[in-house]
Amino acid sequence: MIASLFAPLAHHPAARGLQDDAALWVPHGAQVMTCDAIVEGVHFLPDDPLDTVAQKALRVNLSDLAAKGAKPDGALLSLIWPKRLSANDMATFAAGLGVDLETYGIALLGGDMTTTPGPLTISIMAFGTPANAREPAHVPARADAKPGQQVYVSGTIGDSVLGLMARQGALPVDLPQDLVAYLVDRYRRPQPRLVLAPWLAAHAGASMDVSDGLIADARKLAAASGVRLALAPHRVPLSPAANAALSAAATDLPTLLAGGDDYEILFTIDPGSEPSLCAYANRVNLAVTHIGTVERGEGLSAELANGRDLGREPGGYVHRFCG
Amino acid sequence: MIASLFAPLAHHPAARGLQDDAALWVPHGAQVMTCDAIVEGVHFLPDDPLDTVAQKALRVNLSDLAAKGAKPDGALLSLIWPKRLSANDMATFAAGLGVDLETYGIALLGGDMTTTPGPLTISIMAFGTPANAREPAHVPARADAKPGQQVYVSGTIGDSVLGLMARQGALPVDLPQDLVAYLVDRYRRPQPRLVLAPWLAAHAGASMDVSDGLIADARKLAAASGVRLALAPHRVPLSPAANAALSAAATDLPTLLAGGDDYEILFTIDPGSEPSLCAYANRVNLAVTHIGTVERGEGLSAELANGRDLGREPGGYVHRFCG
Repeated sequence: MIASLFAPLAHHPAARGLQDDAALWVPHGAQVMTCDAIVEGVHFLPDDPLDTVAQKALRVNLSDLAAKGAKPDGALLSLIWPKRLSANDMATFAAGLGVDLETYGIALLGGDMTTTPGPLTISIMAFGTPANAREPAHVPARADAKPGQQVYVSGTIGDSVLGLMARQGALPVDLPQDLVAYLVDRYRRPQPRLVLAPWLAAHAGASMDVSDGLIADARKLAAASGVRLALAPHRVPLSPAANAALSAAATDLPTLLAGGDDYEILFTIDPGSEPSLCAYANRVNLAVTHIGTVERGEGLSAELANGRDLGREPGGYVHRFCG
Repeated sequence: MIASLFAPLAHHPAARGLQDDAALWVPHGAQVMTCDAIVEGVHFLPDDPLDTVAQKALRVNLSDLAAKGAKPDGALLSLIWPKRLSANDMATFAAGLGVDLETYGIALLGGDMTTTPGPLTISIMAFGTPANAREPAHVPARADAKPGQQVYVSGTIGDSVLGLMARQGALPVDLPQDLVAYLVDRYRRPQPRLVLAPWLAAHAGASMDVSDGLIADARKLAAASGVRLALAPHRVPLSPAANAALSAAATDLPTLLAGGDDYEILFTIDPGSEPSLCAYANRVNLAVTHIGTVERGEGLSAELANGRDLGREPGGYVHRFCG
């Protein structure tokens, strides 16, 4: 299976055709390294198409690299495969992975495959190079937020949790089919914001990807930096589909801000960097939105119009449906 | 949990205290990279102590690096954790991992943790540096065996499958308790032959670690190199415990040669390198044994005294007990 399905995806000479026990990689310099696993029934649904499962497994890692201002270079795959799945299923998985490796220009360097009596589980280790030539390499940490900075987020928030709710029949109101399709795709296939990496590598304060919900992750960023984040919930960018869901009372703002799997980037900038950021975002055609400020203190505030402060609520929603 | 149990193990600055989304590693040059996952009920038993499970998860990767002639530098951990296990269990796991990180001088650079409704699963990505200063870096492949070379194996073969059989009550004859303890430890805690890495990096032909059974892995090496391996089964090195098991008719040679989880190194050398190898092996106090030759042709021969050729038997035994 490895030879027929995955070896053709591993054409970089460092991968040794996936015929060896290890890869031999010659790095370009400082290396940003991350690993994330996804588990059937926790991070994806048992009936999600397996090509999108492969893509989610890769992209959640690429999202981390993007948030660290890195350009992805390579990945290693641990595929923990239930025997009940078929050879066709594996071919679908490999095809999805292959498309993404091509799209993002990533070398599949190695991996291993084992069977499991449990759920399909995929662990990917991805690495890359700081996307800015600055020396020494700057890799924005969660801990780099400073009072006086502005808080930004890329893309739109809350689509993914709506996609999950739609798939689970948990939306109290039916939405038009094209909107549902958009939301489900946002759940299944995160869009790693790699286009933003060069700017982040050169200019960002703190930066992290939003995977556990905006509220929970903003709280983590504040804690790591030893600051307070004051978010303005009404400024948080929503997609047309999420706005339609709000209008139809199919959801509410706290659900969108606490739901997970957004895979957007939450970052802070010096106020003077705003023109540079806006010009850059326009050029790469990615929305970035000013959603709050960094203050002295600790914790998080995110006050709704009715005075309810989401920042004071513990943990927010759990976006993952089991496990 | 990450903060209290694993962050103290991650003192290398590249790990950023496990508080960030990625590590920032500055490589020494060419990098050997590998990843391997182990799954409860497949690679270890549900009642194996969790400190040894952590150690097995790391060591199966170190064994790959050793076989490639590399010195390990760092590792990333994906811990896929069943909710039924306790905080104490995780502390035991972390303690075992910590001991090994220290013993082998490896930086824990990052990782992630997720819950699973299934079995405990650990995926580790480990990387290292070619252990010999030769330029360009030589990393012996499975594919580097040449006719006329000699086939060697490190340590002893067959202990681990006996340890597994003992734990499963599958040994037809009882062995002395101290021998059983030795065998079970060989199953639970592979001994990565890192001391051999510098010699392999300088002198080896082909090299791979033996994880799926000597017979199966020798066949893989032959196939990758486009040669035939002729092994002499009676030359294969056995431990005193394995010899005792043979004498007591608790097992037979084909079982030992086909059983898996040895994590020894199978490698080929030019005949002229033998004195250098023997001197080196003596100095580092690791047995290496000449067990066969590389010939033109394909496949494997491993003929027993009774004429039965293990090399002609498909696949050999399956060493893993489920999955």
